[in-house]
Amino acid sequence: MSPQSKKATLSTEPYKGVRDFYPEDQALLKHFMEVSRKASESFGYEEYGASVLEPAKLYKAKGAENEELVGEQTYTFLDRGEREVTLRPEMTPTVARMVAGKKRELVFPLRWYSIPNVFRYERPQRGRLREHFQYNADIFGVETVDAEVELIALAYEIMRGFGATDDMFVIRLNSRKSLNALLAEYHLSPEKTKELMTLIDRKTKIKNFDEEALKIVGKPFVLSAHSDEEVEAVRARLGKLGITNTVYDPSLARGFDYYTGIVFELFDTDPENPRSLAGGGRYDNLTSLFSNERVPGVGFAMGDVTIGDFLGTHGLLPKTAAPAQLMLCTISPEAISFAEALAQELRHGGLRVLVNVTAKKVGDQIKFADKRGIPSIVAIGEEEMKTNMFTLKDLKSGQESKVSRALIAKHFT
Amino acid sequence: MSPQSKKATLSTEPYKGVRDFYPEDQALLKHFMEVSRKASESFGYEEYGASVLEPAKLYKAKGAENEELVGEQTYTFLDRGEREVTLRPEMTPTVARMVAGKKRELVFPLRWYSIPNVFRYERPQRGRLREHFQYNADIFGVETVDAEVELIALAYEIMRGFGATDDMFVIRLNSRKSLNALLAEYHLSPEKTKELMTLIDRKTKIKNFDEEALKIVGKPFVLSAHSDEEVEAVRARLGKLGITNTVYDPSLARGFDYYTGIVFELFDTDPENPRSLAGGGRYDNLTSLFSNERVPGVGFAMGDVTIGDFLGTHGLLPKTAAPAQLMLCTISPEAISFAEALAQELRHGGLRVLVNVTAKKVGDQIKFADKRGIPSIVAIGEEEMKTNMFTLKDLKSGQESKVSRALIAKHFT
Repeated sequence: MSPQSKKATLSTEPYKGVRDFYPEDQALLKHFMEVSRKASESFGYEEYGASVLEPAKLYKAKGAENEELVGEQTYTFLDRGEREVTLRPEMTPTVARMVAGKKRELVFPLRWYSIPNVFRYERPQRGRLREHFQYNADIFGVETVDAEVELIALAYEIMRGFGATDDMFVIRLNSRKSLNALLAEYHLSPEKTKELMTLIDRKTKIKNFDEEALKIVGKPFVLSAHSDEEVEAVRARLGKLGITNTVYDPSLARGFDYYTGIVFELFDTDPENPRSLAGGGRYDNLTSLFSNERVPGVGFAMGDVTIGDFLGTHGLLPKTAAPAQLMLCTISPEAISFAEALAQELRHGGLRVLVNVTAKKVGDQIKFADKRGIPSIVAIGEEEMKTNMFTLKDLKSGQESKVSRALIAKHFT
Repeated sequence: MSPQSKKATLSTEPYKGVRDFYPEDQALLKHFMEVSRKASESFGYEEYGASVLEPAKLYKAKGAENEELVGEQTYTFLDRGEREVTLRPEMTPTVARMVAGKKRELVFPLRWYSIPNVFRYERPQRGRLREHFQYNADIFGVETVDAEVELIALAYEIMRGFGATDDMFVIRLNSRKSLNALLAEYHLSPEKTKELMTLIDRKTKIKNFDEEALKIVGKPFVLSAHSDEEVEAVRARLGKLGITNTVYDPSLARGFDYYTGIVFELFDTDPENPRSLAGGGRYDNLTSLFSNERVPGVGFAMGDVTIGDFLGTHGLLPKTAAPAQLMLCTISPEAISFAEALAQELRHGGLRVLVNVTAKKVGDQIKFADKRGIPSIVAIGEEEMKTNMFTLKDLKSGQESKVSRALIAKHFT
């Protein structure tokens, strides 16, 4: 194949199922990260991170069933040292590994958050993404429901940070303890229990729940109608914080693993986007894979894709920010050099300044500023270089002001 | 194997060659990101991103030699759809792909930056990291050296943002055009040229350069002693911006690929850490792999590990920030509930507040605050809940002030 024909075949598409983040996409991701980061840090949570690469063992440890899941649903491959490596499908095993690894040195309770990218091997035809970003917050070392209250309040603050109001989402709560106790009353085999739990988890998504449950249980199955005491205690405490969009949901299971106490989920109330926005709960045995010591934990996660959909549905997407507050237009190579020094001054004063370095006419430079949403320009020509007096133009209003070099920055505060 | 014995074997170590980022490590990474992000945005650069997963073709496209490199030095594996996937070893092919992919819609010149993690398959024994974060900045669509001047000024501002002074690093410049012209005078085979270029790149690291060069060329090889015109033009322009720690370095090659004009490198001047901190140059043909249109570009990259070493060597590591500005100590379950509401108020006012949710004695709660560097505490007891008057204690000075609920936040501004 000649280099020429090879050139023609190289696609500009990203790898299947993952996204490119052009600046407008990256801005939304940054919004997701900044809002969740700010809320987390206001609660005293510290950010941690880890590599996307983890030993496959970390996910297989829980038994043969997990071995299968790791093989089928994750990116797992052998490195050249014959080590089996997995691209992390979630952050919880990683954080459990890290906490267990420095248990002696860490000061509990531990409040940690992270915003990792996580990978799932989804079959292409489903059209689902194989990589997304997932905010994770956890508190380790607290046995009481104070931990649940704090984490749900944090999730609520993040939603508030996105501009969401109480009518846009509901916080569903349930107790896995109660649910497990209820299931125990039916004396099912472990397989049947699992099957039923999966069905319960899907209750809101399917229409023939009773019928399907009957098939599994062999007699009518009824979820508890009256609320759990612990759930109500948490709801009452949240109520004191003005967080009243909560509901007891006996069908909330949040999957199989981990959870040993309260589970919760933030759910979009818009009928157009009936989806879980975030979810988590108490898992008291996570670090037990690494040591015999138990570290109680409560955590939740929130994905960038579902939150992006939520923001879109509710008109909460952030406005695209301009790449700069001011553009210096330049009419000659000398003007460029002059503008660079002026820009340097203004940048040190905290301004975001872009210097035109093209040989385009000033009119075309202004068109560029306009296209990119840059709100103000100053054109640098002979006169400006001589006098150090400038005309600052607001591109929206068309208004012009004469300003001295020292006073340009003042116009932006 | 019993679950018990399996538990005991699960290691808390991360995958070989990658790092866990405990909060103190993450803080350094965030410092790297925040400083480079701030400088970039002050120049009007926009952040972009992409998945770590790329089609392996993206790296193999340049010929058999690259095929070999991809196979040996990158993480490349087959997905279950038999697609060959690579964990990106660098960001440049990705950005070229993205620019080529939306060439019609994008408004040039394009100023982009990104802070991706990149992967190299290093042999374990070398002890080198397999994953690091790499800041990348590029400008597309500018033919003149204004682009080089801007990017070097940006690199300089990032260093300034880290607290570096001019004596701590030097900016080396060379012209690949001149270097290529010089090499052409020796009429070497492509293989010999490549061999010589590799040697030139290593000149500062080896002692017997002349001898080794003689072996390749067959006669004495002398690098140009007088500077390149274009390099001097860039140095003069930088001088006007007060950037004078620049030097012409005829031995600077910056590897083989890409570069077609000026190349530059920031180098640590400390003899204890004689390393390249950042580097880049002009590459005018990068997008040609995707289309026949040429998009001129200049870019550079800077790694978090080398910068971390630089900051350590020069005493510029940032201080560890406390997880919160204020901790509310609590003497009872009622006090916790009360403190949560108070904390909520203060957080909405912009404060970072941690609430004690343990049943520990106040003395032990204060020890926790002290250990974690939290500078101030307020203890919530019966009296405080009744009167809404609080005692704010500065843990460093031991000073106490009586404050009303509404005035707590004022003490932190």
